[in-house]
Amino acid sequence: MVRKIELSKRQETIIQIVKDNGPITGESIAEQLNLTRATLRPDLSILTMAGFLDARPRVGYFYTGKSGTALLTESLQKILVRDYNSIPIIVKENVSVYDAICTMFLEDVGTLFVVDQNSLLVGVLSRKDLLRASIGKQELTALPINIIMTRMPNITTCEMDDSLVDVAKLLIDKQIDALPVVRQSENGFEVIGRITKTNITKAFVALGNE
Amino acid sequence: MVRKIELSKRQETIIQIVKDNGPITGESIAEQLNLTRATLRPDLSILTMAGFLDARPRVGYFYTGKSGTALLTESLQKILVRDYNSIPIIVKENVSVYDAICTMFLEDVGTLFVVDQNSLLVGVLSRKDLLRASIGKQELTALPINIIMTRMPNITTCEMDDSLVDVAKLLIDKQIDALPVVRQSENGFEVIGRITKTNITKAFVALGNE
Repeated sequence: MVRKIELSKRQETIIQIVKDNGPITGESIAEQLNLTRATLRPDLSILTMAGFLDARPRVGYFYTGKSGTALLTESLQKILVRDYNSIPIIVKENVSVYDAICTMFLEDVGTLFVVDQNSLLVGVLSRKDLLRASIGKQELTALPINIIMTRMPNITTCEMDDSLVDVAKLLIDKQIDALPVVRQSENGFEVIGRITKTNITKAFVALGNE
Repeated sequence: MVRKIELSKRQETIIQIVKDNGPITGESIAEQLNLTRATLRPDLSILTMAGFLDARPRVGYFYTGKSGTALLTESLQKILVRDYNSIPIIVKENVSVYDAICTMFLEDVGTLFVVDQNSLLVGVLSRKDLLRASIGKQELTALPINIIMTRMPNITTCEMDDSLVDVAKLLIDKQIDALPVVRQSENGFEVIGRITKTNITKAFVALGNE
């Protein structure tokens, strides 16, 4: 279980002293702070147990370099795609743009994944792609989606056991709204899930409500 | 400064013992665990300093009921809208759907805010609204946006000093992609910012990279 604590001003000062002077004995730290060794003991215990400081007999305390935020990062890394994954909405590559837009409204999603006759991922369609097509001059019922979709290998994918934070970073870096969650098969990628900015927003809300 | 620690199995057990039997002396806890009081001292210090337990002289340890996750929630509450706010993209209520779609592409946003001649918020337009209009039978250059936009008072707004987690929760609960950040003026709301699921995703990534 992961819990969070707020360090006191004194504990922050101790970390700074050890950073600057370590290895340093408990007595020397106490001296610098004009406190007794006994007063300081609980602070040194908490800092050692939390992994900020380490103590070696006859040497003293030294700074581990491992910050608490590194530990926070570590625990966020444990939130996985599979914890927030949604059902993917899939269309065949030969359907029309008009039909794809209807599917998007029926399923109430912002991204569709396009598969070939073997059910392998060949494309991605966003609301933005469809909106762009819809202001073109073409008849939407006659325009096939494979003309306008983003195609393999230009599709960023993720897997069930990827860290959600890493996937969130991909969404930001690539400026996209959703990633297909895939399973690699012999001839390509099977689409088994969907991660969107909505899923990330849900994870963020969950952190605040835990 | 907020840091995070992982409690050991023993510390979790101690919390449980105090929950079930508190107030309870350190000696009694040690006895239940078949440990000496001295061995237990660092654990009891860390749990007390982290706010899980409290100790009263001659009474013993008792459970505070204040979980560490309550503290995590507290610190997430300190991330504000103003920390992640984006520039709002605004259109006048008399422009056409076609022009609004073009603005959306030019500005590369998914939501437009609509204002009246006094620059006060009167509507919101999402990609979804525009896509729905685009498959209708009407001529997009002749269709004004105020026919299809979501109107006041059905618009959820937020303010610069709102907590980002609360706004994220609104986005999920109301199933929308963006909220206008507003400043209340005498006659209505001035739009001064924009929070989208992209901003929330950035905040989530930042937590993981801190």
